[in-house]
Amino acid sequence: MRIVLDAMGGDLGPRPCVEGALAACRRFNIEVVLAGKERHLRRLLSASRARDSRLSIVHADDVVRMKDSPRDSLRKKKSSLAIAVDMVRTGDASAVVSPANTGAFLAHALMAWRMLPGIKKPAIATLLPTMQDRVVIVDSGAVVDCKPHQLVNFAIMGATYAREVLGRVNPRVGLLSIGEEETKGNELVLETNPLLRKTGLNFLGNAEGRDIFTGDFDVVVCDGFVGNVVLKTSEGLARTITEMIKREAKRSAPTMIGGALMYPAIKALKHRVDYDEIGGAPLLGVNGIAIISHGSSNSKAIMNALRVAAESVTRNLVRRVREDLEKYHSQMEKRGVSHEVVTGEAPPPPAPKADGVL
Amino acid sequence: MRIVLDAMGGDLGPRPCVEGALAACRRFNIEVVLAGKERHLRRLLSASRARDSRLSIVHADDVVRMKDSPRDSLRKKKSSLAIAVDMVRTGDASAVVSPANTGAFLAHALMAWRMLPGIKKPAIATLLPTMQDRVVIVDSGAVVDCKPHQLVNFAIMGATYAREVLGRVNPRVGLLSIGEEETKGNELVLETNPLLRKTGLNFLGNAEGRDIFTGDFDVVVCDGFVGNVVLKTSEGLARTITEMIKREAKRSAPTMIGGALMYPAIKALKHRVDYDEIGGAPLLGVNGIAIISHGSSNSKAIMNALRVAAESVTRNLVRRVREDLEKYHSQMEKRGVSHEVVTGEAPPPPAPKADGVL
Repeated sequence: MRIVLDAMGGDLGPRPCVEGALAACRRFNIEVVLAGKERHLRRLLSASRARDSRLSIVHADDVVRMKDSPRDSLRKKKSSLAIAVDMVRTGDASAVVSPANTGAFLAHALMAWRMLPGIKKPAIATLLPTMQDRVVIVDSGAVVDCKPHQLVNFAIMGATYAREVLGRVNPRVGLLSIGEEETKGNELVLETNPLLRKTGLNFLGNAEGRDIFTGDFDVVVCDGFVGNVVLKTSEGLARTITEMIKREAKRSAPTMIGGALMYPAIKALKHRVDYDEIGGAPLLGVNGIAIISHGSSNSKAIMNALRVAAESVTRNLVRRVREDLEKYHSQMEKRGVSHEVVTGEAPPPPAPKADGVL
Repeated sequence: MRIVLDAMGGDLGPRPCVEGALAACRRFNIEVVLAGKERHLRRLLSASRARDSRLSIVHADDVVRMKDSPRDSLRKKKSSLAIAVDMVRTGDASAVVSPANTGAFLAHALMAWRMLPGIKKPAIATLLPTMQDRVVIVDSGAVVDCKPHQLVNFAIMGATYAREVLGRVNPRVGLLSIGEEETKGNELVLETNPLLRKTGLNFLGNAEGRDIFTGDFDVVVCDGFVGNVVLKTSEGLARTITEMIKREAKRSAPTMIGGALMYPAIKALKHRVDYDEIGGAPLLGVNGIAIISHGSSNSKAIMNALRVAAESVTRNLVRRVREDLEKYHSQMEKRGVSHEVVTGEAPPPPAPKADGVL
């Protein structure tokens, strides 16, 4: 199995990519191709002194920057991102990982690979830690203004991901809302809830913000705006609480000693909620495996993103998503949901009236 | 100053209301009227043995239940909630506090008091703790599908509250979005951002989820769906982190001792982020002071909600909100924003065409 890594797009430059790729080759026994400036990457490889025949380089002249708009990024046809995504199209690699700008990554994957049948816009499935394990938040930032059928597709694809890659049997799906009752929510949620009941998914109903972390759901579905706000709010609050505990602990000698004794517990907790352990978020709905890694990923995060890519390849994620979309769409139509509602496509225009002949 | 407390609507029954009211009378030197079943309340008062001449009771036969719809609740004209809200209308009390069902409270306040000029739907302003102090999240659950002019009004009213009740000079307002750049966000945010720039408020631009807790903003504006998700996600995550730390700490003797030594630090932190200290969230945009308290409020939360009510009365909150709405609306119109956009009112219908006479 060969996975291509866009080694140039991250905020921290190519070093964590080179180190993460080396670690992934060894640990998961996979081939990794680094896409980027060859001389630069060779220099980093020589400096690291580690060697691995499973690691190779494909040269790319250009780099997509964080500030590049998706449209500008598409013009950079020789960027490491463009070349990496194209290698999956041509079959030279089975999956692509990139810590580059998300909008650019989406645009490239969309243009090079196209979407799966029934999908017009892809979704990002991000993992958050829970009391039990992890939960998939989908969409977490790709589609900010959604229609009900899009949320339905997020649910289907998120469930496939939870089943195939996280190993959840019959994933429990929740629709993020502001109350458990079906009557609570905004227009989008009120319209989506009855549709989800007709998919045949293991849909448990609405989930509230506080239910995200309990472990009662495997997949929580929301539009990309809400999903992104949830992710960043969680990130900010976790950091704030940690910082506050540190500050309070520093106020007296006993609490400082207490803090030191607590260190192993804090470290174990950090490991559980660590973004770097999660590594990357798959882009669902495109015809290929794309794993989005955080812009400021360190080598551990890159290594784990490569792991997620490898697991997705092994589990044949794209094929499973395509099959599930077909299966659940046809189940919905059997349950009387119209083809238009399922696909979000406008009904065909009415046939032109024949001219009246009097 | 006399404040009326709906003593019957909370999840925990009237006891925390009676105790919280007694504490508030003493501590803030205010009069509190308990609305509810007189015999029940008298019994609780005798049992508590505390006496305070500033505490009185007004009898109400009926109670609004948590499961009552807003419409059903309006039919209960003899409920403690209805009687409490009506006392503000008649001038028998200056403000009302209720731990009852939020939808019912909104409906009663709206019907009895009407809205301030330019406002059609009220907003809930909730406080969250930050690294520095507290931040106002508005709206946090009243209006789930918003138009841009509504978010503008939330910003204006939230800023008035931050200035008058929290004492922030020239409150810093942020619009919750998924990126700092003006080009990031959903349709609602993209339309609202340029309007907020024309209000004359101290608008700092978009705020991301992670910026909520830094203390860089005094007011964060969002629609009620997103705001409610943010509140409940924060609540859930904070509880999960605390629970995880406890669990990890119990795994070994040193970490248990560490936890015990850290106790004062954890307690200080808990005090800072404690909902009970915050007490209540004002309903903004109605022509009266209504403080919503959590359904499961304990006596401390009730006492603090009464404090918030008293502060809002002292600062003349309703009048200040009305003045600010007028001021900022007129500033927007001067800056070329049409009256229709400012008020969200449809332009007047075109005058009927005169019949053509050939």
